[in-house]
Amino acid sequence: MSFKTKKEATLNKLKYYLENDEIDRPIIELLKDLNSIDKLFTTSSCSGRILVLIDRGKKIDSEKYLTFHDYISFSDIENIPRAKNVWLRVEPFILHIIAQDQEMAETIIKLARSVGIKRGGMSKVRVGYMIEIIGNVHFAAPTNKLIIDEELVGILNNLMRRNFRMLEKFHLSVKELIDKIDHTGND
Amino acid sequence: MSFKTKKEATLNKLKYYLENDEIDRPIIELLKDLNSIDKLFTTSSCSGRILVLIDRGKKIDSEKYLTFHDYISFSDIENIPRAKNVWLRVEPFILHIIAQDQEMAETIIKLARSVGIKRGGMSKVRVGYMIEIIGNVHFAAPTNKLIIDEELVGILNNLMRRNFRMLEKFHLSVKELIDKIDHTGND
Repeated sequence: MSFKTKKEATLNKLKYYLENDEIDRPIIELLKDLNSIDKLFTTSSCSGRILVLIDRGKKIDSEKYLTFHDYISFSDIENIPRAKNVWLRVEPFILHIIAQDQEMAETIIKLARSVGIKRGGMSKVRVGYMIEIIGNVHFAAPTNKLIIDEELVGILNNLMRRNFRMLEKFHLSVKELIDKIDHTGND
Repeated sequence: MSFKTKKEATLNKLKYYLENDEIDRPIIELLKDLNSIDKLFTTSSCSGRILVLIDRGKKIDSEKYLTFHDYISFSDIENIPRAKNVWLRVEPFILHIIAQDQEMAETIIKLARSVGIKRGGMSKVRVGYMIEIIGNVHFAAPTNKLIIDEELVGILNNLMRRNFRMLEKFHLSVKELIDKIDHTGND
């Protein structure tokens, strides 16, 4: 399968997810902008989230009890189960993007680094180069060892704020790249 | 600077760090094995750690209050300061390796994936390809919101155990790669 065919198929899936409201809102415009670049398409993404996870040892058996792609209030997590295997987490945004060639993959990784994103790299896939870009914020602790109160909610929201701010900065630099490509030709 | 010159210079630094006991023990043999492969050298690494960090907003101002590259006991963290900006963390192992060519970089990333390491990728650097490989375990919470007791210590140690186990699996697969190279010639 060629890059172009794979891009079309993936964008059709994305369209379906968008129509069914299955993409987290804070990341939609960024995905559209990334996909507007000929040599790129996105394959999976998360804008970052506050998550309550029931850990059953293996990932496949674990269960998302609650997920928020936004700021939360105390009432959202006030009554979550408290147990050693129920974890409260803040996970940073993650983006998977396929680039047609290595040069474009490098360009995107450099953009990410330039806005302070530390984690990211690429690996070869059939139709090009898979880029993974991950934000920096992390919170993870079992609920039975946490004091869950308004202050904790503030801390979680603060991490989400830092996460969204970094995502926005990355988005801005993607827009600048698009402007640059528009002036020099999209390839 | 060529790959070979850069490798020599980096290995000299590593030798110095080893002599001064500045490399965390659980990762030393893995580093030696990786560096025994002609087309690879390691640039920085951490075997994973339990960390108490005083967060001063910017990374540069933050301060490691305590670091353990091993299992801990309750007495190790019983009296740590409790504050919103003092975080208890478990961070997974991280390895930075430079490969001379893309094929070798891909081989290492595939090895990592095959033992369950999800985070990793490469980016182009002057002398080759920088590979980043990161373990999966995470714990991060501010100490003023944590119930610090024996059970929590057990949870932290359990994360470290999972971390070391994954590092060992990766090490085993690196040894297999070395055997394979020895049979077919190191290049």
